[in-house]
Amino acid sequence: MDTTALALAQSLLRCPSVTPDEGGALAFIESVLRDAGFEVHRPIFSEPGTPDVENLYARYGIGEPYLLFAGHTDVVPPGDAARWRHDPFSGVIDGGELYGRGAVDMKGGIACMMAAALEFLAVQPDFKGSIGFLITGDEEGPAVNGSVKLLEWARARGERFDHCILGEPTNPNQLGDMIKIGRRGSLTGRIVVEGKQGHVAYPHLAENPIPSMMRLLNGLLRDPLDAGTEHFDASNLEVTTFDVGNPAANVIAAQARATFNVRFNDIWTPESLGHEIDRRLREAAGNQVRYELVLEPTNAVAFLTPPNDFVGFVADAIEAETGHKPRLSTTGGTSDARFIVRHCPVVEFGLVGQTMHQVDERVAVADLDRLAAIYRRILDTYFASADRTTVFD
Amino acid sequence: MDTTALALAQSLLRCPSVTPDEGGALAFIESVLRDAGFEVHRPIFSEPGTPDVENLYARYGIGEPYLLFAGHTDVVPPGDAARWRHDPFSGVIDGGELYGRGAVDMKGGIACMMAAALEFLAVQPDFKGSIGFLITGDEEGPAVNGSVKLLEWARARGERFDHCILGEPTNPNQLGDMIKIGRRGSLTGRIVVEGKQGHVAYPHLAENPIPSMMRLLNGLLRDPLDAGTEHFDASNLEVTTFDVGNPAANVIAAQARATFNVRFNDIWTPESLGHEIDRRLREAAGNQVRYELVLEPTNAVAFLTPPNDFVGFVADAIEAETGHKPRLSTTGGTSDARFIVRHCPVVEFGLVGQTMHQVDERVAVADLDRLAAIYRRILDTYFASADRTTVFD
Repeated sequence: MDTTALALAQSLLRCPSVTPDEGGALAFIESVLRDAGFEVHRPIFSEPGTPDVENLYARYGIGEPYLLFAGHTDVVPPGDAARWRHDPFSGVIDGGELYGRGAVDMKGGIACMMAAALEFLAVQPDFKGSIGFLITGDEEGPAVNGSVKLLEWARARGERFDHCILGEPTNPNQLGDMIKIGRRGSLTGRIVVEGKQGHVAYPHLAENPIPSMMRLLNGLLRDPLDAGTEHFDASNLEVTTFDVGNPAANVIAAQARATFNVRFNDIWTPESLGHEIDRRLREAAGNQVRYELVLEPTNAVAFLTPPNDFVGFVADAIEAETGHKPRLSTTGGTSDARFIVRHCPVVEFGLVGQTMHQVDERVAVADLDRLAAIYRRILDTYFASADRTTVFD
Repeated sequence: MDTTALALAQSLLRCPSVTPDEGGALAFIESVLRDAGFEVHRPIFSEPGTPDVENLYARYGIGEPYLLFAGHTDVVPPGDAARWRHDPFSGVIDGGELYGRGAVDMKGGIACMMAAALEFLAVQPDFKGSIGFLITGDEEGPAVNGSVKLLEWARARGERFDHCILGEPTNPNQLGDMIKIGRRGSLTGRIVVEGKQGHVAYPHLAENPIPSMMRLLNGLLRDPLDAGTEHFDASNLEVTTFDVGNPAANVIAAQARATFNVRFNDIWTPESLGHEIDRRLREAAGNQVRYELVLEPTNAVAFLTPPNDFVGFVADAIEAETGHKPRLSTTGGTSDARFIVRHCPVVEFGLVGQTMHQVDERVAVADLDRLAAIYRRILDTYFASADRTTVFD
């Protein structure tokens, strides 16, 4: 079997694993890792109201330290396949690039991890330590029956991880640009303002909810939430929609609705941020505006893996292979790292994200080789350091 | 034939004349007025894109002064007839009230005008002057093939009116409350703000159109348009809708749309008001907001019939019959008076408007009798004054 990163990536891309379908992707990984000596588990998790999801957990070795590779095989839908240059599940190579949904987010990254681990084990089958794979099929979906439960399941089995590398596509432009060492949290709120419907010619008999909603939103937006922290940008609030839906230009509407989302840094928890939002709205509303605020439950807290020895060690491996010193970033959207960080330090590093979630998602074949080499170097040095009983963090 | 106001109103209410249907209402008026000696015309007006509309013009006498009664037989739809206590086109009397769509807006008013004119002519068939009826079937609809064209048609025939009474339901609570001597104008504008769609986690790559729209609307709302005039309230701007329609809380929307309506007094023309709105938006937008403003064409200009002798004369007749001195008002929505005022002074006085456009629209039978008596008194004194060659205005 061809276990180069390219060959593994092609096989994975040919599995139509749109969330929550397994699509054969986890079965493929299971067979490859089992052949290489991994103990493989395929737990399925359920929750009322959400689809059942297949997951994979694999471990090689029983010793410490334990380095975990994490990722997801599920992909977002390809949209209209006719708009793609090549079928989104064909894994075609064209002009030095491998096409397919998930090429960079993140079947390509998983293929590189597998290729690196298999190369490493071929040379050092009796290394001191453990290598694991924690792969979910529910990262692009509700993320309910995926990594959260898989990590709890592993903990209940007695698994203890020392460090984790999550293979999300972290690089904006080229391989080596960026490691993510944390992520902002995300909190969504919905506001409903109740006015009183009436005719525009008799405004004193009505209460227009639109200026009232604008007043509330101005109260939210007026002052910055914070000025950022050492490793995080300033928290940011965006109003994502504002809807009234009144078709009649001679009628004052009865109700206005708005939704906002905050990407917040490590100053805040969802609770403390909720209190601040509540305070700002009360102040803006005074006694004059009747409104309701609903904050959606969130598990997207802000987290940081402090830029310590482990981060520096990963950064060194990247620089050695690419010649670039990667930036340590906490920008961007959420990822499963927010769940992993509850169990062990985690850094994110993978392919170049430019085409993720887009038509013609693709990865340079050369990038697959180089990312596999980076992961291989990390394995080599991580377990070599471990032999010298260097302790990270 | 029973030509009391009640009997005429019942007959009119039984005609299903929802705009633009004639429903037999104009045919009924034609037959009654023709029997009483009026010369009656039934012009039909057309315009591409709008339904043809039937109208009625009737005149008794050839001399001066010429007092015109104006109104409309078309009605707004009854909605769900099952929610009415009595069928909306049955003209049932229950508890001293006559039920039906149009009872007060304004078949009831037309019935009172007809009853008053027929009584007057029965006593003074050879009075010096002329009495006219200008009745449209397109007041509640687009108002394109109704009074505007009927008035032009009459002018082209050489008709010259001295004064007009429009029988819209002007009284808020009881007969005698209010005469309308003018109306504010109405101007509707639509604003579209173009932003740039993006992910909430990367706000620097997007442009959120919602705060920009709020900025524009705040610019419109911040300062009053004026402080009102001698006979008019202050002009008022209401934002009637604000819509984005973005279902995704992690996406910054591409576009925001809002509509506003201004009810403006005699300080403004639609043109001068449009310039002021444009100026305010430009100032609020600065160089940062890309937007488009579309002002809808309007024929709803502000107008005033100055409170002169004719107004006082109508007010005196109302006070003599009801014991109430009516307020002279320019409040409320638009009416066909805005078209009539181009041809002669017009005042509006009719029934009590409380149930207009609602389920169970109805009129007190006693009000029909009293309004007919008021119109009769106006006819008596108007033409008696004319005999003494008193000149109004």
